[in-house]
Amino acid sequence: MMKKAVLAYSGGLDTSYCLVNLSREQNMEIHTVIVNTGGFSEEELKNIEKRAYQLGSKHHETIDITEKFYKECLRYLIFGNILKNNTYPLSVSAERMFQSIAIAEYSKKINAEYIIHGSTGAGNDQIRFDLAFAIISPQSKIITPIRDEKLSRQQEVEYLQNQGIDMNWEKAKYSINKGIWGTSVGGVETLTSNQALPEEAYPTQLSENNPLQIELEFEKGEPVGLNGEKLEPISLIQKLNDIGGKYAIGRDIHIGDTILGIKGRVGFEAPGPILLIKAHHLLEKHTLSRWQLLHKDSLANWYGTLLHEAQYLDPVMRDIEKFLESSQNHVTGKVHIELNPYYFKMIGIESPYDMMQSKVAIYGEENDAWDSRDAKGFIKIFGNQLKIYHNLKDEN
Amino acid sequence: MMKKAVLAYSGGLDTSYCLVNLSREQNMEIHTVIVNTGGFSEEELKNIEKRAYQLGSKHHETIDITEKFYKECLRYLIFGNILKNNTYPLSVSAERMFQSIAIAEYSKKINAEYIIHGSTGAGNDQIRFDLAFAIISPQSKIITPIRDEKLSRQQEVEYLQNQGIDMNWEKAKYSINKGIWGTSVGGVETLTSNQALPEEAYPTQLSENNPLQIELEFEKGEPVGLNGEKLEPISLIQKLNDIGGKYAIGRDIHIGDTILGIKGRVGFEAPGPILLIKAHHLLEKHTLSRWQLLHKDSLANWYGTLLHEAQYLDPVMRDIEKFLESSQNHVTGKVHIELNPYYFKMIGIESPYDMMQSKVAIYGEENDAWDSRDAKGFIKIFGNQLKIYHNLKDEN
Amino acid sequence: MMKKAVLAYSGGLDTSYCLVNLSREQNMEIHTVIVNTGGFSEEELKNIEKRAYQLGSKHHETIDITEKFYKECLRYLIFGNILKNNTYPLSVSAERMFQSIAIAEYSKKINAEYIIHGSTGAGNDQIRFDLAFAIISPQSKIITPIRDEKLSRQQEVEYLQNQGIDMNWEKAKYSINKGIWGTSVGGVETLTSNQALPEEAYPTQLSENNPLQIELEFEKGEPVGLNGEKLEPISLIQKLNDIGGKYAIGRDIHIGDTILGIKGRVGFEAPGPILLIKAHHLLEKHTLSRWQLLHKDSLANWYGTLLHEAQYLDPVMRDIEKFLESSQNHVTGKVHIELNPYYFKMIGIESPYDMMQSKVAIYGEENDAWDSRDAKGFIKIFGNQLKIYHNLKDEN
Amino acid sequence: MMKKAVLAYSGGLDTSYCLVNLSREQNMEIHTVIVNTGGFSEEELKNIEKRAYQLGSKHHETIDITEKFYKECLRYLIFGNILKNNTYPLSVSAERMFQSIAIAEYSKKINAEYIIHGSTGAGNDQIRFDLAFAIISPQSKIITPIRDEKLSRQQEVEYLQNQGIDMNWEKAKYSINKGIWGTSVGGVETLTSNQALPEEAYPTQLSENNPLQIELEFEKGEPVGLNGEKLEPISLIQKLNDIGGKYAIGRDIHIGDTILGIKGRVGFEAPGPILLIKAHHLLEKHTLSRWQLLHKDSLANWYGTLLHEAQYLDPVMRDIEKFLESSQNHVTGKVHIELNPYYFKMIGIESPYDMMQSKVAIYGEENDAWDSRDAKGFIKIFGNQLKIYHNLKDEN
Repeated sequence: MMKKAVLAYSGGLDTSYCLVNLSREQNMEIHTVIVNTGGFSEEELKNIEKRAYQLGSKHHETIDITEKFYKECLRYLIFGNILKNNTYPLSVSAERMFQSIAIAEYSKKINAEYIIHGSTGAGNDQIRFDLAFAIISPQSKIITPIRDEKLSRQQEVEYLQNQGIDMNWEKAKYSINKGIWGTSVGGVETLTSNQALPEEAYPTQLSENNPLQIELEFEKGEPVGLNGEKLEPISLIQKLNDIGGKYAIGRDIHIGDTILGIKGRVGFEAPGPILLIKAHHLLEKHTLSRWQLLHKDSLANWYGTLLHEAQYLDPVMRDIEKFLESSQNHVTGKVHIELNPYYFKMIGIESPYDMMQSKVAIYGEENDAWDSRDAKGFIKIFGNQLKIYHNLKDEN
Repeated sequence: MMKKAVLAYSGGLDTSYCLVNLSREQNMEIHTVIVNTGGFSEEELKNIEKRAYQLGSKHHETIDITEKFYKECLRYLIFGNILKNNTYPLSVSAERMFQSIAIAEYSKKINAEYIIHGSTGAGNDQIRFDLAFAIISPQSKIITPIRDEKLSRQQEVEYLQNQGIDMNWEKAKYSINKGIWGTSVGGVETLTSNQALPEEAYPTQLSENNPLQIELEFEKGEPVGLNGEKLEPISLIQKLNDIGGKYAIGRDIHIGDTILGIKGRVGFEAPGPILLIKAHHLLEKHTLSRWQLLHKDSLANWYGTLLHEAQYLDPVMRDIEKFLESSQNHVTGKVHIELNPYYFKMIGIESPYDMMQSKVAIYGEENDAWDSRDAKGFIKIFGNQLKIYHNLKDEN
Repeated sequence: MMKKAVLAYSGGLDTSYCLVNLSREQNMEIHTVIVNTGGFSEEELKNIEKRAYQLGSKHHETIDITEKFYKECLRYLIFGNILKNNTYPLSVSAERMFQSIAIAEYSKKINAEYIIHGSTGAGNDQIRFDLAFAIISPQSKIITPIRDEKLSRQQEVEYLQNQGIDMNWEKAKYSINKGIWGTSVGGVETLTSNQALPEEAYPTQLSENNPLQIELEFEKGEPVGLNGEKLEPISLIQKLNDIGGKYAIGRDIHIGDTILGIKGRVGFEAPGPILLIKAHHLLEKHTLSRWQLLHKDSLANWYGTLLHEAQYLDPVMRDIEKFLESSQNHVTGKVHIELNPYYFKMIGIESPYDMMQSKVAIYGEENDAWDSRDAKGFIKIFGNQLKIYHNLKDEN
Repeated sequence: MMKKAVLAYSGGLDTSYCLVNLSREQNMEIHTVIVNTGGFSEEELKNIEKRAYQLGSKHHETIDITEKFYKECLRYLIFGNILKNNTYPLSVSAERMFQSIAIAEYSKKINAEYIIHGSTGAGNDQIRFDLAFAIISPQSKIITPIRDEKLSRQQEVEYLQNQGIDMNWEKAKYSINKGIWGTSVGGVETLTSNQALPEEAYPTQLSENNPLQIELEFEKGEPVGLNGEKLEPISLIQKLNDIGGKYAIGRDIHIGDTILGIKGRVGFEAPGPILLIKAHHLLEKHTLSRWQLLHKDSLANWYGTLLHEAQYLDPVMRDIEKFLESSQNHVTGKVHIELNPYYFKMIGIESPYDMMQSKVAIYGEENDAWDSRDAKGFIKIFGNQLKIYHNLKDEN
């Protein structure tokens, strides 16, 4: 009897090798699965499906989790203004985690005996796949030919040619991972510490030069409108990626810690995420209390770190999400941004909850909230502990 | 007998009023003091001294604490990459605190019976002054005519005219506070939440258009070189302010919580601080351990918050400084930056402590540090707790 | 016309003075209010009501918020295992905050022009009252005769005698504040730093000497059963106070920071809260993930601090509550405790979510979850960053 | 040529097996090393040395690092009041880390080709050994026969008998690890979640029944005196262990997360550490600022967690140590404690830096530091943000 297996299939060389090799030589009935989180077009998905069947897939499944990805992840990245090391919107880290979970759930649903991924033993992705598979579909044995056999591209291509499969597997100069929450870009430069990516490495090229004002609208922390038009979050992010991309906004290079303990560097372009997060943060500065700002920052930083490190399924993540969601009650309003080639500028915000425009008191103005006598009393007591401390220090 | 008093004197209308009024009507012998933290030129200081004597100062003292300000404060702001609300380098907050302390120390030294400042009852500065005075020079009684009598500019000007003093007190369109760690800019726009400052509000105007590569060198976290030239930190910051200012870099609007509990908005230009902090942070991402990056962030955020809130004299600040200083042991190397009009781009770094370029292991490459069998073992155990947790969850 | 006022009335000397003085001399129609959070008996409340009417109350209202106090506060103190400075269950801090809010709401409801409390200017209570009143019932002007006139007990007693009121106002040797979440005890010893309270200072005396085993049951973090009997939380806490009190358990002296910046010391007995929190914490150690334990601790510590400092109405408190509530999903099970005179001993727990008794893996035993080869791989990769760091350190 | 190897030798069955097996069958020249951190007596060390030579050690080395252990670790555990999960003084975690480092340094010094430890693949110790060895003595290959071959006690005993070695290897009912910072106790009960250890499981038995007052003296956070006698820290801890042990103080069961992700439970007795930490904490509550108390707690918790998880060599640990050391500047004074069978009671403290006994202001008393008008001003401004927040909330 054939062994039923699920393969996380991308259409690339590595997973194509897995598909051909395992179906032909290991007597496996392979169900290929691709998970779309908003990064693939209809056409790309069709081509991948076609190729899967050509190479021997028993059944090919395209799972679209874009909505779920937003609801259960991106939303919280916005709420938390999460940029890893103050730079990276966790584009791939977040996406790969959700793809791993979706594949594990599918594997559980069809009761697969095996579950296959094409990652090597050198990077983060294997960890996200292995973990999600072991937790959600523990009955499926994990198989990873590329990792186990340390195959080179050359070896894989030759094997496929010997099997009569002669597709174009030429390696692109820059390796690209395109997703709704950002596109990562790797190249020879990102292996160094001191070189920037050249202009042409970025998939989206500058095509607008005139400054443009845009307006983003938020409701309880979630993006709901762009330039006066109400949009679903997913459409809004896509549209913002388009507009911002024309200004080459949201590009940078992230250098950070992998789960394996070594440091890695990766370029990215993420115009939508960067604009959303910066706009959202500005709105928060006007609408959250000082204590909220202080505590949110630190918790959100941990949320990003744990998500990056494949800990999305830890229950603490659910706890932090509840905190973040609760903190968004007043984060409602409009943010105005000016786009320019390669940079943008926050103009300002409007919000019914803007604590700066309160009737109770306005900064820098004499007002009814307190008088000079109050201020002197405030400072006197505010300084009590410091006075006590320094008095004892001087005495001793 | 005349009552000996120290006046924190800036040469502006408020403190000029205090000088004239208190010396002529309260029988006070007023010692005017101005504290330079790097923001005043020689000429400005001379003019202020001249005016002080004209208006009745018994003795005028110019205290230069630029070195001390760097050693005991700015250094830590760099070590901590401190930008309040991820935006503001605490330009005025830090400077005013150190000026307050210097004046208090002078007051203690000359054993002044009174100590005077010109702040109103509406802002943060009164708190920094009152606190430093009460802690360091507790024997001096604090006098604050502008706060106590709620005087308007008009009233002050009229009083001075009546006293035969007819200087030009016209109010500038934008109120500017220039310091080595940034220049703050207030205007009608910063009282709103939705308007940006116009180009002309910024004291330094864009004057360069061609991209320029610069190199910053750090030793144990401290800036020591610019473009290959070794410089003292103060000179380096000043030079960097000059170069960056020509590109209109480091401008933004900060909106944050005042110590009085209300929110305030202020524009600033701080090219040097912004470039230094961003470059330093990049170097840290290459040279600090994951745990250092995680804990430093949160502590440094508190350091900035407490400094802003006039808590510089709390002993916890000394404790955090020790942490920050210790964390800089490996933060040595060069950072390359490209300047462009209104924005800049980090190119990369070189460091003997760059953890990305280690012989032990390189990201994304097969290497001797571990093999695929190790990776599988790692992930298996790394996932133990999540497997246990979800297994119990599913069972119950 | 008489001025309508609400008075936070306790039946003690200070608030009795306020009632008599303001109703007779300020032409005020005084509505006395006492708020029960579980610390008063029926009889005590009746006596207080009787006295209120005797002294001139227009209307006396007893507001029972015991349920609400548990639901909106005590519950979270249990979830967070909150002991201020690792000692004090915040007995008075929490209770006074909720009493202040209830009085403010009543004042708003009856549209009182004035709102009166009897606190002095020296302690924390005035802050809780003033803040709650100003936030919730801003239209009511706050009146505080004891604070404003700095009246001594002697002056108040004399005034009341002159008014023909000759009650027994003798001061008890120890000032006691009894509540469901603990009873505070102040005396001459607590004004020193080096003296303990004598045995007789505690209202509840040791009356049992034989060890007793009890069983506490929790469901999603909330106490639901005692010794096998299902109980409402309030009854359970009261019963536990009774049982633990007989063993003189849960006594200690707290020394901590007041909101006014000075340090204060107060004795307390809180057998129920201490037993609940310690039992709950033990159950959590078995059922929460490592990340939950790490993050909960720090957030809960802040929750306690902010509650103590009268910040209960800050929105960050709602955010933390959401986090804490979410974290309790698996905190279900039984805890066994042995009570002894003056101390207790945790025996152990039983829980369907006990992560120590998982089928996946058991500590210290060889098991199927991993083998020695896995362990070696794990450690190799787990140590990557340290190896890189120290290698660079040694080289340079 | 024989292969030079260092063996971490304890004299127990596992390491004796390693010694005999590897020296006789693998042609190894084995240098046995035992590291004393204060837990072994002279006699015990002599017996271990004797046995080592009997079983074939080429050279036996006893390394005493008690002083170093205090200076570089225990000191910080006191400064941080560190009890893992608020219970466990990290007795074994800390000791094993330092033993691993000492063995690694010795191995490097004598340039050993191999380095051997006797841990299994199931626990934490293997991680501490492997990590320290790989970091400090990377040229030495790690050998772990017990882990690799999954040997049972029975197999090891039989092997040794076959080799003509017939010692008494009977397993004790409770496995004990005795150290200066606490003795761990494992038994059948600690494998359950619901059973306590019986009285006889603890090595030290109750032998005193009369209450005893003791006085601990600290200087800048370090213990320097006991009952009026000045003592070196090590002697003081040992003496305190003796005295506290007679009262059966400092016993508990710790349940926590292992580095392997599963939960483990272990009993312990640690009278000295528990008394020192609780006394030190009380002294801190009187002498540290509110901000110090808040930030120290959270950092110290991380220090304990990372130490437990074998991360002592991470540079962040040095950074935290600097913070902790700086925080102890005022932690000087005497603490009075009353010992009773099974529990103790803090009486109080005396310190020149006691912030509760300041001339500036005393809690609960009217004083010159502020008056009622100041208090009202303080509260008004202190409440500004909450008023603004709730006003906007109600409006919208």
